[in-house]
Amino acid sequence: MPDKIAIEKKVLSENDLLAQELRTKFQENKVFVFNLVSSPGSGKTSLLEKTLGLLQDKLNIALVVGDVQTENDADRLIQAGGKLVRPIVTGGSCHLDANMIHKSIQQFNLNEIDLFVIENVGNLVCPSSYDLGEDMKIVLISTTEGDDKPLKYPGMFRKSSVMVVNKTDLLGFSDFELHKVKENARQINGQLEIFELSCRTGEGLDTWIDWLLEQVILKKKEI
Amino acid sequence: MPDKIAIEKKVLSENDLLAQELRTKFQENKVFVFNLVSSPGSGKTSLLEKTLGLLQDKLNIALVVGDVQTENDADRLIQAGGKLVRPIVTGGSCHLDANMIHKSIQQFNLNEIDLFVIENVGNLVCPSSYDLGEDMKIVLISTTEGDDKPLKYPGMFRKSSVMVVNKTDLLGFSDFELHKVKENARQINGQLEIFELSCRTGEGLDTWIDWLLEQVILKKKEI
Repeated sequence: MPDKIAIEKKVLSENDLLAQELRTKFQENKVFVFNLVSSPGSGKTSLLEKTLGLLQDKLNIALVVGDVQTENDADRLIQAGGKLVRPIVTGGSCHLDANMIHKSIQQFNLNEIDLFVIENVGNLVCPSSYDLGEDMKIVLISTTEGDDKPLKYPGMFRKSSVMVVNKTDLLGFSDFELHKVKENARQINGQLEIFELSCRTGEGLDTWIDWLLEQVILKKKEI
Repeated sequence: MPDKIAIEKKVLSENDLLAQELRTKFQENKVFVFNLVSSPGSGKTSLLEKTLGLLQDKLNIALVVGDVQTENDADRLIQAGGKLVRPIVTGGSCHLDANMIHKSIQQFNLNEIDLFVIENVGNLVCPSSYDLGEDMKIVLISTTEGDDKPLKYPGMFRKSSVMVVNKTDLLGFSDFELHKVKENARQINGQLEIFELSCRTGEGLDTWIDWLLEQVILKKKEI
């Protein structure tokens, strides 16, 4: 079906152009932006709840929260104290695109924001193709999935700069092995920065938070 | 982007036509076919490993196993004793389509098969749009995901006839509540048949297997 491929290429190239505009805008305002991607249920919203709890006294954090339906995740983040939370209900689309982010940022004053977080739709395939103007994609994986996920969904792990392994409190309840997921991930992308943590117990969150804070500060120093 | 929507509609309608051909072919051969869908990591392959172990002495089971990359899942099912296992590596595509199944069934003698299983790509969004000629979609969800998944990914739960809740041995390790996931699922689709089981401990597998065997027998009796 060459028609379909041609159209997909056109859509992606239009998306890339708009993403580049967004990137420039974020850059001008020295906002650090990450695009959080994972399967449904890996714990994206839980990680953001914890991150808000630990960082919102220090930083102005904006969160744009994508879901196919419902504003449940956005509501959870508001309950976790998020002051700048905006849902995007995609109404069927399996990913966020640059146009959705473009519309969404009209609701914020970027100049007052330090950290801009995009929680993508839970999907380990399609969001990897859509640049949203972010500084980096961060892929979340949980220990209750399989440790071969990086090999089976390589696109996402290739496009991400960071892998966060969540639910370390559940290690040992399945065949998932931490060293294997790391080996598999680094086989796909040798540059991946890796964090291990449990949103439930809090283990490992401090390292994640320190790193995140550092990224925000580095961004402010960029000329 | 009306172009994109028009092309998508065309692709889906071509897919539906081919799926209808497949359905007729399966019907003629009285093969019961299910299309197993879920997020990555919910346990599709584990459920099929257990199902093979418990049913392959009674039935001729064919398995077509979709993955974006790797034949890992197909290899696992061969190791679990599967004699008629065929991988489909989609090479980036986020779902199986009827054309892939059409090519794949050339490798089987449908007349000798009782149960035909399609393990879809791990993705709770896109596979819901693609009819593969199956008798039913079966959606798998695990207790380590969120109990609001049916509300957040309604398309998949609306298109499925059965929901299997896996990893019941991990109930209590998260906020996931069994009664809530059932309520949410039935809110989307009041006709859903629901099974609860743990592939790890084996709890609940007998009910699943009995039901599956019944579907195969009912199919044989269809005129």
